[in-house]
Amino acid sequence: MSLDWLHGPCAVPDAATAARAAARQGRLTKPPGSLGRLEALAVQLAAWQGHDQPTLECVQVCVFAGDHGVVAQGVSAFPQAVTAQMLRNFVSGGAAVSVLARQLGAHLEVVNLGTAVDPGPLPELIDARIAPMTTDFTIAPAMTTAQLNAALSAGRDAVARARNAGAQLFIGGEMGIGNTTAAAALACALLGEAPQQLAGPGTGLDASGVRRKAAVIAQALSLHEAHCGEPLEALRRLGGFEIAALTGAAIACAQAGLPLLVDGFIVSAAMLAACRIQPAVRDWLLFGHRSAEPGHDRVLQALDAAPLLALDMRLGEGSGALTALPLLRLACALHGEMATFSEAGVAGSQP
Amino acid sequence: MSLDWLHGPCAVPDAATAARAAARQGRLTKPPGSLGRLEALAVQLAAWQGHDQPTLECVQVCVFAGDHGVVAQGVSAFPQAVTAQMLRNFVSGGAAVSVLARQLGAHLEVVNLGTAVDPGPLPELIDARIAPMTTDFTIAPAMTTAQLNAALSAGRDAVARARNAGAQLFIGGEMGIGNTTAAAALACALLGEAPQQLAGPGTGLDASGVRRKAAVIAQALSLHEAHCGEPLEALRRLGGFEIAALTGAAIACAQAGLPLLVDGFIVSAAMLAACRIQPAVRDWLLFGHRSAEPGHDRVLQALDAAPLLALDMRLGEGSGALTALPLLRLACALHGEMATFSEAGVAGSQP
Repeated sequence: MSLDWLHGPCAVPDAATAARAAARQGRLTKPPGSLGRLEALAVQLAAWQGHDQPTLECVQVCVFAGDHGVVAQGVSAFPQAVTAQMLRNFVSGGAAVSVLARQLGAHLEVVNLGTAVDPGPLPELIDARIAPMTTDFTIAPAMTTAQLNAALSAGRDAVARARNAGAQLFIGGEMGIGNTTAAAALACALLGEAPQQLAGPGTGLDASGVRRKAAVIAQALSLHEAHCGEPLEALRRLGGFEIAALTGAAIACAQAGLPLLVDGFIVSAAMLAACRIQPAVRDWLLFGHRSAEPGHDRVLQALDAAPLLALDMRLGEGSGALTALPLLRLACALHGEMATFSEAGVAGSQP
Repeated sequence: MSLDWLHGPCAVPDAATAARAAARQGRLTKPPGSLGRLEALAVQLAAWQGHDQPTLECVQVCVFAGDHGVVAQGVSAFPQAVTAQMLRNFVSGGAAVSVLARQLGAHLEVVNLGTAVDPGPLPELIDARIAPMTTDFTIAPAMTTAQLNAALSAGRDAVARARNAGAQLFIGGEMGIGNTTAAAALACALLGEAPQQLAGPGTGLDASGVRRKAAVIAQALSLHEAHCGEPLEALRRLGGFEIAALTGAAIACAQAGLPLLVDGFIVSAAMLAACRIQPAVRDWLLFGHRSAEPGHDRVLQALDAAPLLALDMRLGEGSGALTALPLLRLACALHGEMATFSEAGVAGSQP
């Protein structure tokens, strides 16, 4: 397998459709601009879909799961066995992402990239196992080149399945005990930030736990930072299987012209890597929510992103992105179904 | 008709149910607190409904419409005829609130409290006409005592209909050319603020229009402020039919134990009046969105309110509250349908 596909051209949102959609917004029975960001969302979706009146019936959610060698350094409030346990919970319908996808009529897919504990036979899981976990990146690169390649391809494959299913929007989620540590380490390398700026409580560390996590990241950066000039190499050394899969998925989405609704801190770190590899990926990203994880702000700023929601969520799994999905659908409905001033016989604003 | 009903006792949210709901949140398969405000919403709805696992299937939206005499002072970007034109648009399904209510399966009701132009025969409208418009409050009080009473009662009647329909949540909307001027004047009187602090562009005034609006409010305050020690009297002198109806609806909701999801600036000004009349009304209010109208922040602050959404919306009609409704429903679904750690066989956080 080659990594050449990562550099294939990205699709371009349709500016002519966007202009027509923006003009329609100005004719709908409301003061111009009074639907705020819902207007911009409708115009953006029109540009992405190349349709004057976009819809969002078919949404694909893909949760990528993998374990992290760095957990040996004591960076998580939860035991590593939880990654595999949550895989069972995802497919049996009891996890947050399962409930949200069901409520919203989104199709949920769960990809197993490798867990420390075998989750057992789960036919609903997509088996893309690479290894039981990444290598502890305080000691060596998290992934070999072949492992990185496999993880990126798993993301691309998920996007191909979404396209085959007719998806109009892709949501990537993640699960992996320890993955806020990997995401923070990767973001530090890509942004030149200090670990204390991006390390946070994750699933629930106390202040001393966060200090320990920052120290672990500092140790990893001292080992790898000199080799992280290329974003792919930073991803290989400091990322994780699920983070690399999300990076691959974002690039594949942009190449296919499939918009991606971004979840929280970990997904955003993967988006940062994707945009460093291919800046045009940014044109296909919409940011669902601002996480309570403190490092998220800095990553969002680097991506020039203003998320739709800020509800102090910090669960991952794609939960924040799914929570924002109804806003997109309401934006589409308003755009498509509101009457224009002339249709309704309503006077416009006075000169 | 007497105003005594305004002072009848309010219901009390069920603290025991809230405690059980909060305990359940701690057992669901997620790091404690990681669903952020969605957790608090589920607990709040449980306390309001007195049910450990709340639902929000039946939602009533009531749009109150009325015209304003102060429009003669040139305070709006739209002609006054638009109020009646929009009544037709509400019931024929082309307005933003119509589209949102339909999408969300909420029942929409439109109450005509009096418009300058007769909207013509519209059997779907609820006829509660008081007068063609309020009196220009730069000259005299906006309403007589009988008119105020009728408007407050129209709000109470709408809540009675909502209860009869089995509503679990009430959303009040408004329409009335000129009503950001009335809402700002009322809020100035109740908060002791200067007009420049609360006057904003409304449907689209430019900077000189906003200055004119502030001057009109200052003129009204100089006439009425000395008589505004009682909130009901402030409402009578500076409010509007739809604003008073919303105030009455909020008090009736609190008395009946029916939660009210608050829309933007104008509804919030009415909630401020309601809470000044009966402070316990605040226990039954949830704030849907932060409006782009600049005065909203100050009113929210006075109500100690942190809205769920901030999407730069400023349309009114109940549109911001309806846009927040999916968040409440997702909070209910997560609370009711997620597996607990023991049900899913997932390990909790480490000590």
